[in-house]
Amino acid sequence: MEYIAPLQNLIDKFASIRGVGRKTATRYAFSVLSMSDEDASAFADAIISAKQNICRCKICGNLSDGEICRICADEKRDGSTICVVEDERTLMAIEKARGFNGKYHVLGGAISPVNDMSPDKLRINELIQRVKDGGVDEVIIATNPTVDGEMTAMYISRMLMPLGVKTTRLAYGVPVGADIENADEVTLTRAIDGRREI
Amino acid sequence: MEYIAPLQNLIDKFASIRGVGRKTATRYAFSVLSMSDEDASAFADAIISAKQNICRCKICGNLSDGEICRICADEKRDGSTICVVEDERTLMAIEKARGFNGKYHVLGGAISPVNDMSPDKLRINELIQRVKDGGVDEVIIATNPTVDGEMTAMYISRMLMPLGVKTTRLAYGVPVGADIENADEVTLTRAIDGRREI
Repeated sequence: MEYIAPLQNLIDKFASIRGVGRKTATRYAFSVLSMSDEDASAFADAIISAKQNICRCKICGNLSDGEICRICADEKRDGSTICVVEDERTLMAIEKARGFNGKYHVLGGAISPVNDMSPDKLRINELIQRVKDGGVDEVIIATNPTVDGEMTAMYISRMLMPLGVKTTRLAYGVPVGADIENADEVTLTRAIDGRREI
Repeated sequence: MEYIAPLQNLIDKFASIRGVGRKTATRYAFSVLSMSDEDASAFADAIISAKQNICRCKICGNLSDGEICRICADEKRDGSTICVVEDERTLMAIEKARGFNGKYHVLGGAISPVNDMSPDKLRINELIQRVKDGGVDEVIIATNPTVDGEMTAMYISRMLMPLGVKTTRLAYGVPVGADIENADEVTLTRAIDGRREI
């Protein structure tokens, strides 16, 4: 027996979020039902607004509400150092640690033959072009310390080698096998300070 | 440092769901961003539609998309036996067990002095009225086997005593201290079969 259609539909939508099972989705749907009409409609608006107003920064690929993200647009930040990350959650984790004042390049994932992620599906060519355009002294590769992340770091460092730019990797300090976004701020800051050349 | 406004707003909305923390809300928001435009807008519609189209059944208080819920409207079900539950999740668990063919009464919670839930905030008067209106032979009280649920069961059974209706409680079989919705179907069916008079 299923719930009435509008409720079952809402449960299905919650269950379509990665990592949310049936029971959890049901709990969330009931939680939405117990919200006020205003809160529920604000929730729905937030989903629409996020999809409509968020795009990718033309320079670094970070999430942005304009053509250029606020980090790329910030003239106080050092554009000669680019930190390469898999996604914007890693970027935010590094931003929160406050140990880095350069700019970023968001790849949009990591090379992964298993998940059919080949280098051309990532923003690696855009990174090469940014370096070719000049003004970049150092590229810090901050992909996750996983198999896929390490492979991506190796690949990028080889692509950058002919361009003569200094290429570094985050120092050990980030626990191996985990995601960078879950590292604490001190560890992250140390990892940035202790970065080493590949 | 916060995420850009539309994203931060969406994260806040997810975090307003009971039981969802900051990190989980962020994960959900990113999952919505990675949905197609159609899926995201269907998600938003599902929220609006659930809030607009779901109301309470005028008879039993169950969630319904019309004035009368489909269980109350079902003439094949035995209206002389009313199963009293705290919420519609317990109702659904009993329905899934398929061991009960009577009708329901949804209280909307349990009496709880700690959470400021007094009897007048529950649909207890409506239950008394249903019994007074006649045609009811038995009231099965299936509140959760917690302190609040037991208190509610005692309260209701005392209110029903002068009306001369048979009042029963689910048999032991439901594990004490847990929620009925999590019981397996065999346990639930046995609990219904073995109900005893209070």
